[in-house]
Amino acid sequence: MNERPRIVRTGCSLCEADGGTVVARTGELRVVRVEEADFADYPGYLRVIWNSHVAELSELAPDERERLMAAVVRLECDMRHILEPDKINLASLGNMVPHLHWHLIARYRDDAHYPSPVWAARRRQPDQARLASRRERVSELVAAIQRDFAPV
Amino acid sequence: MNERPRIVRTGCSLCEADGGTVVARTGELRVVRVEEADFADYPGYLRVIWNSHVAELSELAPDERERLMAAVVRLECDMRHILEPDKINLASLGNMVPHLHWHLIARYRDDAHYPSPVWAARRRQPDQARLASRRERVSELVAAIQRDFAPV
Repeated sequence: MNERPRIVRTGCSLCEADGGTVVARTGELRVVRVEEADFADYPGYLRVIWNSHVAELSELAPDERERLMAAVVRLECDMRHILEPDKINLASLGNMVPHLHWHLIARYRDDAHYPSPVWAARRRQPDQARLASRRERVSELVAAIQRDFAPV
Repeated sequence: MNERPRIVRTGCSLCEADGGTVVARTGELRVVRVEEADFADYPGYLRVIWNSHVAELSELAPDERERLMAAVVRLECDMRHILEPDKINLASLGNMVPHLHWHLIARYRDDAHYPSPVWAARRRQPDQARLASRRERVSELVAAIQRDFAPV
């Protein structure tokens, strides 16, 4: 690993704060739980945030990109094994905050938006008992991630 | 390169058809232009489709994943240089068609949904003259992609 000095952009919310509850952190990236009210129906929603301020994936060096994508895939495996979703959704958008980060969302056929993306119009009110049971697995997911990554 | 035999799933629309106008193709993946009516306001919209039937990124071997992400990043660079967007959006969702594919979308501050994802509610009617001028650059993008990738 050959880490470059971190670039910090004044006024960037992901340079100035963690952007969520940090689950794991390396010198290059951090994994946070998304706990915003808009996504309360998605307990299995993580973001992987590149620590240094770059906007686009193609601004990373190839070895940096590979480490970032390896982290995304490791998290995807943890989510698949523990949360047992019907599909994983990955997205790097950054229109609101142009600081490189990946959204990882566990999706279920009976969730609020399925099969639409979580940013589209809601399709249904999810079953609260199922949602509660999915929420219960998040602590196991967090523990698995913390085993996989260096301690915070 | 060490390509595995292609897996074909009966009934999968991305196994049974190209899923768009093919711009470039390798033994493992293809690049298509998205020309669906729903996305007529996004001339810079490509999909990269893994030829073999897998659902999730984490089902690829590490070397396959690296080749796929290198292709995504090469396309992102072409899009940035030629289309000059304000942001690139990348997403692998697959809720509708659970066959691994990446969406690559050139976004502009004045486009129909910005800063929302293109799957959210529209925010405005885009300026038709600007849209026409962006459409004109797509042939240059296609030519660059065809130089980058092996011939179709």
